[in-house]
Amino acid sequence: MTDDAPNDLPPTGLLPAGLMDLLPPEAEREAALVEILMAAFGAHGYERVKPPLLEFEDSLLAGSGAAVAEQTFRLMDPVSQRMMGLRADTTPQVARIAATRLGLEARPLRLCYAGQVLRVRGTQIAPERQLPQVGIELIGSEAAAADAEVAVVAAEALARAGVTGITLDISLPTMAGTLLEAAGLTLEALEARGVKPKPARDMVAALRQGIDRKDPVAVLTIAERAAPLAVDLADLLPRLLQAAGPADAALAALAGMPLPPAARAIADNAVAVIAAIRARDPGLRITLDPMEFRGFQYHTGVAFTVFGPGTTGELGRGGRYRSLGEEPATGMSLYPDAVQRAAPVVAPRPRIFAPLNTTEAELAPLRAQGFATVYALSPADAPRALRCTHILRDGQAVPLGGAPEGAEL
Amino acid sequence: MTDDAPNDLPPTGLLPAGLMDLLPPEAEREAALVEILMAAFGAHGYERVKPPLLEFEDSLLAGSGAAVAEQTFRLMDPVSQRMMGLRADTTPQVARIAATRLGLEARPLRLCYAGQVLRVRGTQIAPERQLPQVGIELIGSEAAAADAEVAVVAAEALARAGVTGITLDISLPTMAGTLLEAAGLTLEALEARGVKPKPARDMVAALRQGIDRKDPVAVLTIAERAAPLAVDLADLLPRLLQAAGPADAALAALAGMPLPPAARAIADNAVAVIAAIRARDPGLRITLDPMEFRGFQYHTGVAFTVFGPGTTGELGRGGRYRSLGEEPATGMSLYPDAVQRAAPVVAPRPRIFAPLNTTEAELAPLRAQGFATVYALSPADAPRALRCTHILRDGQAVPLGGAPEGAEL
Repeated sequence: MTDDAPNDLPPTGLLPAGLMDLLPPEAEREAALVEILMAAFGAHGYERVKPPLLEFEDSLLAGSGAAVAEQTFRLMDPVSQRMMGLRADTTPQVARIAATRLGLEARPLRLCYAGQVLRVRGTQIAPERQLPQVGIELIGSEAAAADAEVAVVAAEALARAGVTGITLDISLPTMAGTLLEAAGLTLEALEARGVKPKPARDMVAALRQGIDRKDPVAVLTIAERAAPLAVDLADLLPRLLQAAGPADAALAALAGMPLPPAARAIADNAVAVIAAIRARDPGLRITLDPMEFRGFQYHTGVAFTVFGPGTTGELGRGGRYRSLGEEPATGMSLYPDAVQRAAPVVAPRPRIFAPLNTTEAELAPLRAQGFATVYALSPADAPRALRCTHILRDGQAVPLGGAPEGAEL
Repeated sequence: MTDDAPNDLPPTGLLPAGLMDLLPPEAEREAALVEILMAAFGAHGYERVKPPLLEFEDSLLAGSGAAVAEQTFRLMDPVSQRMMGLRADTTPQVARIAATRLGLEARPLRLCYAGQVLRVRGTQIAPERQLPQVGIELIGSEAAAADAEVAVVAAEALARAGVTGITLDISLPTMAGTLLEAAGLTLEALEARGVKPKPARDMVAALRQGIDRKDPVAVLTIAERAAPLAVDLADLLPRLLQAAGPADAALAALAGMPLPPAARAIADNAVAVIAAIRARDPGLRITLDPMEFRGFQYHTGVAFTVFGPGTTGELGRGGRYRSLGEEPATGMSLYPDAVQRAAPVVAPRPRIFAPLNTTEAELAPLRAQGFATVYALSPADAPRALRCTHILRDGQAVPLGGAPEGAEL
């Protein structure tokens, strides 16, 4: 809601753009989903940490936090006279905890978190500036099995929330850069061949943009102008861009390509991660997009995007990264607001109206059965207006039919 | 932790004073307690709302929000160029929701909330600047039964969290001012009798301070100097101050006092609220302090403080107030951090180590039994170092004894 909101609310009802109230029943549903997801994480040995919403900006924006620096609200701490930030992502905080307070705990360290994150600005397609975030971080293992675990645990958590039929999209965000490097198309290599800094920078940017747009012609045109020796790209690049799709076919395509050694290592790692996922969760639908890198600035190995069934969109993201002190780490964040849109609608809790002078002894068993009990506080209290589905009469829960209020009282 | 923190953490481990990380198992325990409390609220028909952490300061600080204005972090919204505040209390936000988005819902309206609140400064005895808060608001009923309900529901929520033996302390924050008014000891009455504004203000402040310190001599000395006609205070005041204690005795003492009519109405309301509480929860321990008013700036009827058993201290606060548009309302906030200190320690979840190549088919039933399953990701993973209590061997959960790591593997 913005200042242009309709006039049917008094001024105090206006909220800043991208910030909103969750009302019944959505607020309860979101909280229940968060606890379902967290329970799944806990069942897999991930232990909950709760970092504060505010901390000094230099620690909040360290490591992977740099990626959200522009989206972080800052405010002055009157106690220390230092700048603090309101977190825009929880992963950097978990990394800090793992490196400091839990620095001496045995590895691998499994941590999970749930909380709110805030952003300075929303986007046109994602206007929200406060978002719930839950996630897991697995810190201190280089194993492909660790990457597989965070994917499998996220899938199980979603299944517990009623979201099945998801797709795990794996991308290899270091692949594009590795190929360009092997082809001599880095800033350093271009400058070493006499290209001036500004054109070299423009060229590298255009190459990455061409890959991002999946436009091999644009990439090869620049590549040939820049470095006529880098001919293997003309063969590889279209095939790599076309390889994106279901994992088995994509892996088969990768296996048949004459990749340079560094790129081959990236592909081999993808093979290992996908095999480890299959070993733990053979039914999970996996796609692979070897050349995708957008949105994974700090990822160093596989990167994950979890898509819900049908058109429900992105439910979470994750992947491998270097945590503080270069410790190997992998993790996954899920977005409870998106999960809620993808999850089945839950029947509302039945509400039973307790007329005046009902005793707690009559109501406690109804609560134990799952009823919300709504006590009459005055003779004017009306069961249907209070959205009750039942009324307590002679000790029995009697459903309220569709008849008008009072007709059956 | 402050800048004076010990040197065993790297710089990025420092947090601003009063802000802290909750680590395992405390973070999970707090979250579980919050959900237990919220489940109790939901079972009594209170529906969850989730206002944003940030909103425009003019709406955040309206109504009861004015009481926390000095404790509210402010920051500029770059989108609207208006000042926003980070909530220091959730009640004003719930009042806004009740008056605006839920303004047309039938009354009484039962809402509950759980979330974080932030404060600009901590105090010496309460240094925390981020606190979890859960609570209920019952909006649109004048009935004593409504005040009783929020007290009873809070007590039941605490009992579900394992906290029994609580005391509900009821105070009547309007009593002191009502008595002073009846005795002609208000600013207006003093000035009307010719006392100059500054001495009149000082006198009223000293009177309230004397009552706050439970010092009838100080109060009466000033009262006699100020208004020799207000003689009934000399009899009433010491008796009212001494009446504080268990509710039945306090009510009996109040019943025998020659209270002025406005004060009698306040006492009668206390009688009605306590009777309504007894009707729903006869076992609840209640104390009454008729002259206490500190910390209840915006309360207009009974005010509640919930004390835990023994020395566990204050677990929550609430009472009757006027919501936006002067709508009658009553509510209660509970402090999950304090509840956690008062609640019984919960046994940690058993953790079972799953050696390499364990299948999910073996682990899913163990998770269903309540185990956290900890998957081996490499041959180096050590069950005891990972704080596992059991190991999976031949399909069985075998407890890990006290023997050194590896002895029984």
